[in-house]
Amino acid sequence: MKKIMNDPNEIVDEMIEGMIVAHSQLIQRVPETGIIQRRAEKTGKVGIVSGGGSGHEPAHAGFVGEGMLSAAVCGAVFTSPTPDQILEAIKVADEGAGVFLIIKNYSGDIMNFEMAQELAEMEDIEVESIVVDDDVAVEDSIFTQGKRGVAGTIFVHKILGYAAQQGKSIKEIKKLAEELVPNIKSIGLALTGVTTPGASQASFTLGENEIEYGVGIHGEPGYRREKLQPSYDLAEELLTKLAEEFDVTRRFAVIINGLGGTPLMEQYVFTNDVKKLMDKDEWSIDFYKVGNFMTSLEMQGLSLTLLCLEDDFYMEALSAPVETISW
Amino acid sequence: MKKIMNDPNEIVDEMIEGMIVAHSQLIQRVPETGIIQRRAEKTGKVGIVSGGGSGHEPAHAGFVGEGMLSAAVCGAVFTSPTPDQILEAIKVADEGAGVFLIIKNYSGDIMNFEMAQELAEMEDIEVESIVVDDDVAVEDSIFTQGKRGVAGTIFVHKILGYAAQQGKSIKEIKKLAEELVPNIKSIGLALTGVTTPGASQASFTLGENEIEYGVGIHGEPGYRREKLQPSYDLAEELLTKLAEEFDVTRRFAVIINGLGGTPLMEQYVFTNDVKKLMDKDEWSIDFYKVGNFMTSLEMQGLSLTLLCLEDDFYMEALSAPVETISW
Repeated sequence: MKKIMNDPNEIVDEMIEGMIVAHSQLIQRVPETGIIQRRAEKTGKVGIVSGGGSGHEPAHAGFVGEGMLSAAVCGAVFTSPTPDQILEAIKVADEGAGVFLIIKNYSGDIMNFEMAQELAEMEDIEVESIVVDDDVAVEDSIFTQGKRGVAGTIFVHKILGYAAQQGKSIKEIKKLAEELVPNIKSIGLALTGVTTPGASQASFTLGENEIEYGVGIHGEPGYRREKLQPSYDLAEELLTKLAEEFDVTRRFAVIINGLGGTPLMEQYVFTNDVKKLMDKDEWSIDFYKVGNFMTSLEMQGLSLTLLCLEDDFYMEALSAPVETISW
Repeated sequence: MKKIMNDPNEIVDEMIEGMIVAHSQLIQRVPETGIIQRRAEKTGKVGIVSGGGSGHEPAHAGFVGEGMLSAAVCGAVFTSPTPDQILEAIKVADEGAGVFLIIKNYSGDIMNFEMAQELAEMEDIEVESIVVDDDVAVEDSIFTQGKRGVAGTIFVHKILGYAAQQGKSIKEIKKLAEELVPNIKSIGLALTGVTTPGASQASFTLGENEIEYGVGIHGEPGYRREKLQPSYDLAEELLTKLAEEFDVTRRFAVIINGLGGTPLMEQYVFTNDVKKLMDKDEWSIDFYKVGNFMTSLEMQGLSLTLLCLEDDFYMEALSAPVETISW
């Protein structure tokens, strides 16, 4: 896999530098760390921090800004950031009202974020957290106990970010998060594998006309391989899996998420098929988001996320304007 | 090349439907056409219309909105829209002050936009136009006499869109456009070829470790193939070519544009290298834009665009907020 890069060991550092060059009006780097912090003024509200391995851009740094994340911590490619980096992010995000951590369900992330939380509490910063496990594809995985955390995490960033901006307390945000996450479910499919920078080969490969349902955002195995089907049939497969998780008479918000190498044209064709299928089965959709949000380097494929709008606050939060690179 | 699609003959129609599903608050489709129109209220100002073949998403529909394009016309993949479609777009964009057309320099586009302009003038709509030919890579090409029009077109959308929003007349916009376009230069490189939907093979192929400089956004030939170099060296090659076109002591705005299949991580690494090189040679950069703006379906690669900020109005226009999908 050809990549535009220099030294694979420096790729995350150089990427962060490039992000700052491109978006210096919105974000800044905490010097000599993998932490990206918003430039917005501190106002004494709860800080919201997320992060994880790099390679999922624009997640998470693309969601740093007023009304979403206070800071994002970038680990090495597909590797959790270290506890000391996360601790540093907590410190820069702290405005005196505590810091809330949004963690995707990967064992390394859980371990390191929890350790950072303990370290921060020893320094008298109040910290709460939520683990996002929206991917319904498989139970347990290479790096995960239970379900993986994927593109639905972006909904969590937006809704909790808005709650913090509205001045909710860290306990209120914790309660909101615990109610929110079970209402978010995702599932994906891959047309190609993914190669980490410097690796000699892809983490998996698919045949010339083959796809895999349920692949994870680090190339973890999914639940079935088969011949590539028309977009409509792909959408039907993913939506059928998600429908099993919900009361489909409720109202929903949707993310159609490109995995990095899939052009917008294909994402919009798929969106049209999702809409057709949902209309046919009389789903009610109040909100759509289409684009690359939680990627897997250059992987071709996409994922579908549904959020059941159980609480009116969710739509209020999703509709509020923000200043970020990628929402 | 695996693609998420249904019938290749319906792909543009289904894509447009999907765009409308995703962004119905911003845009609407003129029924049974390939025209995407902004929802903003009509205010009697000059209408700005662009368009061309599809496959370059988010261009051009992603730039439809208050402060940029009034409407975009989507042709078939890599194929100019027909004169009657462009005429229809002119009509919906007309608010009584005339309509300005932004045309990329491809023979089919030139022919069809000019014909539409004549038809509109016969219906007493004042129409002016500009041809964008920012790609310095090669002179003449498969579909082009002279230089091709590529990602620099996005700067033209933004600056002329702002001028129209400010209430400038069509003659003033024409003068602005004629001064602006010679100040915009681009050049690209490809890591992979591109396959149009339904085609049995890519328009060109590159070796496992090979790249091509100067490839066009429809896969037109560039000026040199060689072994993939580190990002810094790629940036140096492109910047050296662009430096020949400018007085480098002036101030500049930059677009680093992903061609569709290149992940953001690589785009930001390249951005960091462009910045390093420009700092070394003491260029002054006032504005950066990084992301997928003018793509070539799933092609991997990127392009670099420089705009020489000869007129203070350019930065004023680039900095103004807009409501579009992709600026």
